[in-house]
Amino acid sequence: MSGVDYGVLTPVWAGGAAPERSGDEAFVAAMLRVELAWVQVQSQAGLCSQADLDAVQAVADVARYDLAQLAAKTPDGANALIPLLGMMRALLAADGAPAGAGTALHRGATSQDIIDTALMLLLHDGVQAVLQSLHRTASGLADLAAAHRDTVCIARSLTQHALPTTFGYKAACWLSAVLGAAKNLEQLRGHLPLQFGGAVGTLASLEQHLAGRTEITATTGQLSQRLADRLDLASPATPWHSNRLPIMQAGSALGAAIAALGTFGADVLTASRPEIGEITEPREAGKGGSSAMPQKQNPVHSLLLRSAALNAPGHVATLYTAAGTAVDERPDGAWHAEWPALRELLRLAIGSSEHAAILATGMSINTDALTRNLKLGGDAVLSERLATVLGPVVAGGKPAIQRLVLQSLTEGGSLRELLRASTDQQLLSDELLDELLDPAGYLGAAGRFTDNVLAEYSAWKETWQSQR
Amino acid sequence: MSGVDYGVLTPVWAGGAAPERSGDEAFVAAMLRVELAWVQVQSQAGLCSQADLDAVQAVADVARYDLAQLAAKTPDGANALIPLLGMMRALLAADGAPAGAGTALHRGATSQDIIDTALMLLLHDGVQAVLQSLHRTASGLADLAAAHRDTVCIARSLTQHALPTTFGYKAACWLSAVLGAAKNLEQLRGHLPLQFGGAVGTLASLEQHLAGRTEITATTGQLSQRLADRLDLASPATPWHSNRLPIMQAGSALGAAIAALGTFGADVLTASRPEIGEITEPREAGKGGSSAMPQKQNPVHSLLLRSAALNAPGHVATLYTAAGTAVDERPDGAWHAEWPALRELLRLAIGSSEHAAILATGMSINTDALTRNLKLGGDAVLSERLATVLGPVVAGGKPAIQRLVLQSLTEGGSLRELLRASTDQQLLSDELLDELLDPAGYLGAAGRFTDNVLAEYSAWKETWQSQR
Amino acid sequence: MSGVDYGVLTPVWAGGAAPERSGDEAFVAAMLRVELAWVQVQSQAGLCSQADLDAVQAVADVARYDLAQLAAKTPDGANALIPLLGMMRALLAADGAPAGAGTALHRGATSQDIIDTALMLLLHDGVQAVLQSLHRTASGLADLAAAHRDTVCIARSLTQHALPTTFGYKAACWLSAVLGAAKNLEQLRGHLPLQFGGAVGTLASLEQHLAGRTEITATTGQLSQRLADRLDLASPATPWHSNRLPIMQAGSALGAAIAALGTFGADVLTASRPEIGEITEPREAGKGGSSAMPQKQNPVHSLLLRSAALNAPGHVATLYTAAGTAVDERPDGAWHAEWPALRELLRLAIGSSEHAAILATGMSINTDALTRNLKLGGDAVLSERLATVLGPVVAGGKPAIQRLVLQSLTEGGSLRELLRASTDQQLLSDELLDELLDPAGYLGAAGRFTDNVLAEYSAWKETWQSQR
Amino acid sequence: MSGVDYGVLTPVWAGGAAPERSGDEAFVAAMLRVELAWVQVQSQAGLCSQADLDAVQAVADVARYDLAQLAAKTPDGANALIPLLGMMRALLAADGAPAGAGTALHRGATSQDIIDTALMLLLHDGVQAVLQSLHRTASGLADLAAAHRDTVCIARSLTQHALPTTFGYKAACWLSAVLGAAKNLEQLRGHLPLQFGGAVGTLASLEQHLAGRTEITATTGQLSQRLADRLDLASPATPWHSNRLPIMQAGSALGAAIAALGTFGADVLTASRPEIGEITEPREAGKGGSSAMPQKQNPVHSLLLRSAALNAPGHVATLYTAAGTAVDERPDGAWHAEWPALRELLRLAIGSSEHAAILATGMSINTDALTRNLKLGGDAVLSERLATVLGPVVAGGKPAIQRLVLQSLTEGGSLRELLRASTDQQLLSDELLDELLDPAGYLGAAGRFTDNVLAEYSAWKETWQSQR
Repeated sequence: MSGVDYGVLTPVWAGGAAPERSGDEAFVAAMLRVELAWVQVQSQAGLCSQADLDAVQAVADVARYDLAQLAAKTPDGANALIPLLGMMRALLAADGAPAGAGTALHRGATSQDIIDTALMLLLHDGVQAVLQSLHRTASGLADLAAAHRDTVCIARSLTQHALPTTFGYKAACWLSAVLGAAKNLEQLRGHLPLQFGGAVGTLASLEQHLAGRTEITATTGQLSQRLADRLDLASPATPWHSNRLPIMQAGSALGAAIAALGTFGADVLTASRPEIGEITEPREAGKGGSSAMPQKQNPVHSLLLRSAALNAPGHVATLYTAAGTAVDERPDGAWHAEWPALRELLRLAIGSSEHAAILATGMSINTDALTRNLKLGGDAVLSERLATVLGPVVAGGKPAIQRLVLQSLTEGGSLRELLRASTDQQLLSDELLDELLDPAGYLGAAGRFTDNVLAEYSAWKETWQSQR
Repeated sequence: MSGVDYGVLTPVWAGGAAPERSGDEAFVAAMLRVELAWVQVQSQAGLCSQADLDAVQAVADVARYDLAQLAAKTPDGANALIPLLGMMRALLAADGAPAGAGTALHRGATSQDIIDTALMLLLHDGVQAVLQSLHRTASGLADLAAAHRDTVCIARSLTQHALPTTFGYKAACWLSAVLGAAKNLEQLRGHLPLQFGGAVGTLASLEQHLAGRTEITATTGQLSQRLADRLDLASPATPWHSNRLPIMQAGSALGAAIAALGTFGADVLTASRPEIGEITEPREAGKGGSSAMPQKQNPVHSLLLRSAALNAPGHVATLYTAAGTAVDERPDGAWHAEWPALRELLRLAIGSSEHAAILATGMSINTDALTRNLKLGGDAVLSERLATVLGPVVAGGKPAIQRLVLQSLTEGGSLRELLRASTDQQLLSDELLDELLDPAGYLGAAGRFTDNVLAEYSAWKETWQSQR
Repeated sequence: MSGVDYGVLTPVWAGGAAPERSGDEAFVAAMLRVELAWVQVQSQAGLCSQADLDAVQAVADVARYDLAQLAAKTPDGANALIPLLGMMRALLAADGAPAGAGTALHRGATSQDIIDTALMLLLHDGVQAVLQSLHRTASGLADLAAAHRDTVCIARSLTQHALPTTFGYKAACWLSAVLGAAKNLEQLRGHLPLQFGGAVGTLASLEQHLAGRTEITATTGQLSQRLADRLDLASPATPWHSNRLPIMQAGSALGAAIAALGTFGADVLTASRPEIGEITEPREAGKGGSSAMPQKQNPVHSLLLRSAALNAPGHVATLYTAAGTAVDERPDGAWHAEWPALRELLRLAIGSSEHAAILATGMSINTDALTRNLKLGGDAVLSERLATVLGPVVAGGKPAIQRLVLQSLTEGGSLRELLRASTDQQLLSDELLDELLDPAGYLGAAGRFTDNVLAEYSAWKETWQSQR
Repeated sequence: MSGVDYGVLTPVWAGGAAPERSGDEAFVAAMLRVELAWVQVQSQAGLCSQADLDAVQAVADVARYDLAQLAAKTPDGANALIPLLGMMRALLAADGAPAGAGTALHRGATSQDIIDTALMLLLHDGVQAVLQSLHRTASGLADLAAAHRDTVCIARSLTQHALPTTFGYKAACWLSAVLGAAKNLEQLRGHLPLQFGGAVGTLASLEQHLAGRTEITATTGQLSQRLADRLDLASPATPWHSNRLPIMQAGSALGAAIAALGTFGADVLTASRPEIGEITEPREAGKGGSSAMPQKQNPVHSLLLRSAALNAPGHVATLYTAAGTAVDERPDGAWHAEWPALRELLRLAIGSSEHAAILATGMSINTDALTRNLKLGGDAVLSERLATVLGPVVAGGKPAIQRLVLQSLTEGGSLRELLRASTDQQLLSDELLDELLDPAGYLGAAGRFTDNVLAEYSAWKETWQSQR
């Protein structure tokens, strides 16, 4: 048995961008990228030669490493950087690299510097993929919100029919959550910090080295800044080796995006039930079907959103537990527990957002079903309105109207006729009654709220496009 | 048995500010405050009379309600607002309130509006308490960082002695995390949103009412804004009944603060071990002692920080699960699951920050122990430095030095003497050797990083004080 | 503000048996019961006098303690037993108790002994309440399974209609899970262990005391056994102060019961949707209604089951985290984190099982809706059967039949007619076709499986009744 | 980038038995094994020919499948069995298999049957690996408990020195937890259930098939039993497609084992701190070292135990959440969320138990450090004993002795001398005083408890060996 994973048990992200962007190879490549960038900074600062840099560059190629062998060595030092560094040095030797290359490689750094920073690079790349998919998702939802701004349908609370709303407003509510989650991620991505502190966060080794090289004018602070710039990361004022806020913030932002898409998925799953039938997932050849039951079309995209929403919170909790039990300048297990949890959250977010984009841009809205369901409860769905409007004018007030509503429900009579029979034409004309019983007239601010969200979307989309 | 809880099983927040600020009475008072504020807004807008408002004000007093009875009724409608509203109406009747009072009360609102907004009010008040305690914590840590900026001690990674650092830098790292967590909470507190959407988020009932009152010029949007202003909350562009980002963000910010303090607590617990003895918790009469073992002084404050850090992540996860499985315009259980989790996170944060403040401002640093522990590993603790400095100059290079280090460890010899014996005076003078073996000379950027954090603290403190 | 909790934010257990059985007063009463039982054992063994016992009995009354004051003192020693013991001693003094009472009280014990054992007593009592409610739940589900053993309805997978089943089998599946969860809890309850080990689990103080009292013949092992017997707990071969399996097992068994009921609740919630309408929750006056929308009847019982199922997993995780990070003979926070999590799981289980019992014994099954939904997909729901039976005989085999199914779905034609038209009478008689298209003929082993579960239920019920 | 995972981010199980036993290839092989076993049962029952069986056997070889391609297809139907079945059928066709092979393959089964059962097979195999490692762990701990049954050392509570105990008893407490966890796992492994119910748990298709084959005498119940026997699984009375207790129980038992080892790891980590130094992890060439700091030997095994203990609870919670939100005859995401969580728990348990075995059988106990730390607090560590024995006889009683203890601690005097000076020789002879101040005389039942655990271990070991 080979022992490697392909994503067979995680369909939400298998087959998408997640494996390439956040698999073990991507992570090892990111570690190599950090080590290389640091030698580049050193070379630029005169701390090593161009030949040293060239030699390191030659070994900073993930294709040169046997990752199964690397993984098997990770328990020895409890992390992957230690054996990777050993392999890099072996390759340098095999390549006949100058001694300076080995000296420059990883100079003054510690394994946590490389691993934490490499995870930030995975996030930098992976979150961009999430954002791209969220933009497609938002675009689809915005189209639905605009197209169905005035499509009346039923709103539900606690599973039951409550009042009329519009399908556009439903879509706008999904969009509003997606926008919020995406903005969180943008902010996160813009502030992902370099970790660079050496063995205990003091950069002592590097400072020592610079102290012995008076010809070097760059300070450790400047070198850190250049390293951060080169990696497109932020350079924090202090190392965060023992301050795990950046990890918790990343986990939270990813978890919130997955949850926001989970809500979207939950609504589509409900609407996809045959008895409800308001939404049909995009039908693609060979997807969602059952060979034994050809009549069955499963809502796989929304189902995968839901599975991700169920998987993510455990990983979020792990990150908070790890942060809250961290100890010393480098913790004895809490740091190590962060890695798989953070990476899996990234993958779930990438996969979720891909499926959400397909769903939002491809699903069909069945307006007949929206209308049929809206009418299912008869006029009683407007009982709140009737009580508000007629309460003050009819004999018996609000309670009398509520009695008529209940009578129509239990005895099956038409609420309209009961109202007609019990209320004088002068107080309640036929025209007014018809008007009152028209769901389209009881949508409140649904349109305004929809427009608000669409405006927020447009502004966000423009900013995004202007940045490209 | 009375069935009420006093906090007997949660010592981290019992006896502090949490019970009063976030107990059931505080929550019911917050719901009453929201209902009252809404009638105040209506009164100002001409939607009800001053007498109506006076009548509602008279029943908006939490002291008038039997909370045990209220709690017992919560299962009937699955939330507390429904029975509270029934009790309020009963009191209005008993008080002989004008009919308009009952009409204005809760007009156009739904139970979710009141409950979500009341939770935001608890957060608004409770987070302020957390921030006050975090300021005291930060002040204590800043004093320690400044006082011990140059106190050399050992830094540890994976439980083992690694390199020298300063105690001031340790304190600065705790402070850095506290500052980050506090800024998150400030941002959260500044954007806590009003929820106001009526039964399904459309404000249909309120719009209907306004449509019938042409003399009223205020729009539903304006009324929402005024309600938000009155409650000192933000007024979002769209209701968030089905978008639970605000709940996740609140839970994350509280959880991150608890975790940041958990790290602080974990370090103090380690340092409090008798064999290490670097930190002593403040001794207060009657606290932390054991009657059977008078010699024992337990580090209760840091222990409570740790217990909170272990309790919080489960609640954070619950909020993400609830958000990710929410469905419809109001969910069938996911909404309800948020309440106890969010409230408990608030309490844990209040309690944690109180204990952190006592600890940070009262704990003793035992410099003798810092020195003793620093010397425990002998000169070997500087082996990284020796390798860096001497590697290039001695015969055999870095590996030779590492061999000497291991020899000193396994054979018990003095590393200084081994180095002296194996290296020529010309390459390594006695003076240079002494200098190299002085831990105080191998602190890297610890001082600079400490200063950076202290500068960040000063700026933050000034902003805080200017706001008061 | 009083600062106490009544359960206002946890409707699933407020108003039921949970507050009295597991509130702070119940917990303090349990601690008092352990302390008293220990003095009773001592008195019986000749370690103290009857007068000492009487004096301790007089102070072992929870009504004599101010629990708010007790809670406020818990942070001093990080647990509730320390201040409680202080209050007990103060009462002994105030009562003029003999000196021997104070000596016997808590002799040789440590706070962990009392708190861990008191939690076991809460579980012993609370789990019994859960089991009683699960028996009522099971009884209701068994009645439904028997009554609807042959009521044909649709089974769903991934939200879509799959094949026919019976409602009785659905009920049997819920019942099967309830039986499994209840048996777990019975096993748990039968093995709840006494914790009794003194300060560090060695019973050193007690052994010392006995060594000085040669007239006492009982060993510490015998005294432990008598204490366990008196409290109706098991007496383990070794103290479990640092082995937290009992806590994890309790949390898991409670969590599994809550989850099993969550599944039941989730199915009822789905079936309660107006478009599906297969199940109606029991209507009770004043419950589940909405004043503004009298037509709305919310499925509150199943909703509360779901809210509990969402709240519980975070607490389960906390217990595993606490156990996995426990250290020393008594941990520095991990032990303390267990208390609120375990207690809340107990409460959620008590509340959940109460609502499940009401639901299972009172809900209505709408057979018209079952039939209507079964027919919704037309004959296509039997396509698997058609393919199995006709595949081998018709031209084109299975694929040909699948084509007809899809044709009927997309073109709206009757599958029966399409089959009739495409298949020769000799191969497929009208009678056989009718038979094949009868859902009642394609129920497989649903009846057998239902009977199996009912038989398991009967056996379990008899054992339960014979034990009373 | 290849996108596959090797375990680079999870050192606790990389490089051990976990990848081969629970990687994607192992899971796919398990699915193939289930499909093959089912055809074997059919062949035996006369439902298909030997040639059919041979053909299926030929394609039931995991080496014939491209798992990356398989993974990429999993999103189409949201699980891996659907594309695997397609690939199997394609291979059957390519192999020129008889038509009966394709008919027999997967006959009457559904993807959930295969996936759930395959996961049970992974557990069956993987838990055996865990048990083997736990036996080695237990053996090592039993040796330590026996060897150090009378090695006196300090016991700690809340990080502080409490009373003397023995190192053997410490080891026995770890052993007790390991035994409990292992017995849970044995019980779990002995009852892992086959899932076999067809599309909706009724076995309708299979029953239909048998109805048409009157020459077949086996019933569906008998066939299920034979399938279970062949796979070495239990055959439950009812399918558990919607009853997820088996999943929760598996997750709980694995999680509890990981937590029990986490406690062991936490204690070793603490004892490994240089200032404490009571335990040294086994030194293996190239493991636990730091190239920059050759003096540093990291406790990697215990650290990995701790990282697993921090990672596991989130996965446990996921399983409970999934179970509690499952709906319908097959859930819309909750089922899918179980897979990665359950598999990862298995891996963490395999890896944890491997490292625990190395640790328990290889770590060194530093008795000098045990003695040094025991003496650290001087005679005060016996203050409980002094109060118990001398309290009744000296003037001033217990409080007087506590005052002397505090005096010795604060003024630095010898407690022995203070006691000597303040107590008459007749009441307290020098001999008695020496005896009282000997920690070895205040170990209580530590020896008895140690023996109890060792006896439990011996019995368990014998049963294990007799089963092999």
